[in-house]
Amino acid sequence: MSDGTIDDAATAFAPPMLGEPYLLTPGPLTTAAAVKQAMLRDWGSWDGDFRALTAELRRRLLALIDDRDGAFDCVPMQGSGTACVEAMLGTLVPREGKVLVLANGAYGLRAAQILRYLGRAHTLIDKGDYLPPRGEEVAAALDADPAITHVLVIHCETSSGILNPVQEISEAVYARGRKLLVDSMSAFGAVPADVNALRYEALVSSANKCIEGVPGFGFVIARKSELEAAQRNCHSLSLDLHDQWKVMEKTGQWRFTPPTHVVAAFIEALHLHEAEGGVAGRGARYANNRNVLVAGMRAAGFETLLAERWLSPIIVTFFCPADPNFSFPRFYDLMKAKGFLIYPGKLTAVESFRVGCIGHFDAHVMRAVVEAACRSLEEMGVASAAPAPHVLGERARLVA
Amino acid sequence: MSDGTIDDAATAFAPPMLGEPYLLTPGPLTTAAAVKQAMLRDWGSWDGDFRALTAELRRRLLALIDDRDGAFDCVPMQGSGTACVEAMLGTLVPREGKVLVLANGAYGLRAAQILRYLGRAHTLIDKGDYLPPRGEEVAAALDADPAITHVLVIHCETSSGILNPVQEISEAVYARGRKLLVDSMSAFGAVPADVNALRYEALVSSANKCIEGVPGFGFVIARKSELEAAQRNCHSLSLDLHDQWKVMEKTGQWRFTPPTHVVAAFIEALHLHEAEGGVAGRGARYANNRNVLVAGMRAAGFETLLAERWLSPIIVTFFCPADPNFSFPRFYDLMKAKGFLIYPGKLTAVESFRVGCIGHFDAHVMRAVVEAACRSLEEMGVASAAPAPHVLGERARLVA
Repeated sequence: MSDGTIDDAATAFAPPMLGEPYLLTPGPLTTAAAVKQAMLRDWGSWDGDFRALTAELRRRLLALIDDRDGAFDCVPMQGSGTACVEAMLGTLVPREGKVLVLANGAYGLRAAQILRYLGRAHTLIDKGDYLPPRGEEVAAALDADPAITHVLVIHCETSSGILNPVQEISEAVYARGRKLLVDSMSAFGAVPADVNALRYEALVSSANKCIEGVPGFGFVIARKSELEAAQRNCHSLSLDLHDQWKVMEKTGQWRFTPPTHVVAAFIEALHLHEAEGGVAGRGARYANNRNVLVAGMRAAGFETLLAERWLSPIIVTFFCPADPNFSFPRFYDLMKAKGFLIYPGKLTAVESFRVGCIGHFDAHVMRAVVEAACRSLEEMGVASAAPAPHVLGERARLVA
Repeated sequence: MSDGTIDDAATAFAPPMLGEPYLLTPGPLTTAAAVKQAMLRDWGSWDGDFRALTAELRRRLLALIDDRDGAFDCVPMQGSGTACVEAMLGTLVPREGKVLVLANGAYGLRAAQILRYLGRAHTLIDKGDYLPPRGEEVAAALDADPAITHVLVIHCETSSGILNPVQEISEAVYARGRKLLVDSMSAFGAVPADVNALRYEALVSSANKCIEGVPGFGFVIARKSELEAAQRNCHSLSLDLHDQWKVMEKTGQWRFTPPTHVVAAFIEALHLHEAEGGVAGRGARYANNRNVLVAGMRAAGFETLLAERWLSPIIVTFFCPADPNFSFPRFYDLMKAKGFLIYPGKLTAVESFRVGCIGHFDAHVMRAVVEAACRSLEEMGVASAAPAPHVLGERARLVA
């Protein structure tokens, strides 16, 4: 990994409004002014003009997976990303199905919690705070339990910022005749999910992640044959993806009131995504953001939780400095005063914090973040950003 | 009912942007420019500034029911209004409960459909397209079935525009020791729901109705004792109102990503609602909108589905003209070309259309709507707006 593979001096990202901080969080994130300005009109949800927006949204999202055979469809769903994960699991897993959940952080555990609510059979490989689930483990678990019908993997687990090895997991799943569901909430749009290169039945993401829209809905991209077979699976009327799909196919409308302004903003975000070069262009900017951030923070003495090969371009976890003068709430406030909202850590064993690399900004902002972090440490009287030596032992487990 | 009880010449409602039609629909509706402009910044959902917005939202909504004893709380929930109805039913009705659903249109039937999904016991009084469920019927149904624990009523059923008699229904329910749940989706904020005058356990509404926000979330206002007792009732993680409430009380945050921009817009809408005189002021403007609309349309030869006493200030159903030159799709397009989006009817037996009275406009706009309707009839070559004589017999059943 090296600093500045992209000539970011050539890019132009207008800063947020005066006094508004950059959101260095895994979404909601900092969006372009044009995205927000698209919300300055009202839309009739029944009207043909809005139906055209919905059709464009679905068409553009499908284009991002390069579905040449037309085997997939895109079903947007109102609500939070978690609601969309629940819609995917509740609709696409038959009542008599069984799900192997691959967890290495909060979002895998949340998927298991959803399945408990639903009363659907499931089992868990829990790798703890950040270790990746590997293909061989998945293969062994599937060989040991023929009742498992589906595997759920978290594409990028933002609890740690790890990019999980979905390719080897997919291969293990399909070699054993099972089906893969991907929670690509924080990765879709910046990390490839091309169906010609990665096999899966469905993928879920939301408006306010790497497409850089504002929050209010998500979407499931699923194989049509799976959607078709899913009638009467769902435990919930409002989360029934099959019903949402059928009604949308028939009428062009969302079954229930959609977040019209959020949809209009998302269309603008999709246009900007395309103009940036689609998944490849967006992914390259985020990777550069991450490279500049990580290089700068390391130069300042900070250490990342993850070893190189597991770092995602989405969000990076740093260990908190061991210096007793360091306090995360104070660090948060000092960073906020300098115009940057960072994110608390989610590790159970060690103190950490996270910095998001996604949103409407480039490496110039990442350099300013590093500078702000250094100044904040000075203001707290923290002499060294180094974590306690023993926490680095954690990372050593990963390098192998 | 008489035209112009309010001096609407004194009010000033800026029209939508050039080329944007008025939404004469039951929500999403035409909102104030200031409401939409509140969406021009991004918010970190974890940050204290956004938590303050959430607290203000809950406090202001509770103030609208005049909860002097602090017995109620307000729980916002991501998603469509239907998702919020499902959250209320799924969380507040115990698994062993039984619901009497009072239906006189699509929304009552939808509540029954939700309960079928949930596998919760329920029974239905179905009054058809528009006849109101009455207190005596509810009393008789409750006397006949001691297993019924809860009654669900639709405050304003927008399928027809009827304002259901919630007061007499509440009295019948509590005289028999049962509990009332109110779907006040399209009425809350313009029709009183003061807990000192109307008894209920919970009420549900959404951001994009009479408070005049934009769509993306809804809210349940419920008695705290009911929320407290509702642990482990819910069939869904994302719709679990008890869990949403507990987490919000503890952290000030929404459990899962909230529609931050929509929330910010709603705060602005609540400010405008207060400035207009709260529920009384908003309700008076809408009633005046309706009075001007109905008087004008009747003068033009149109007839309303409902007799006077059942007309809500929310939306009005008109019979389609009997003239064979009349076509609703053409009428819709002609009205749209004049700057007004109207709404199709939802009656099963007769042809009808609907015109909403809610949104950021006053009686000036309603006069323009009437004029546009007259011109549209002329353009279609419709000589008379009168419906077929037999459909008026329908209405006669209601006058009694």
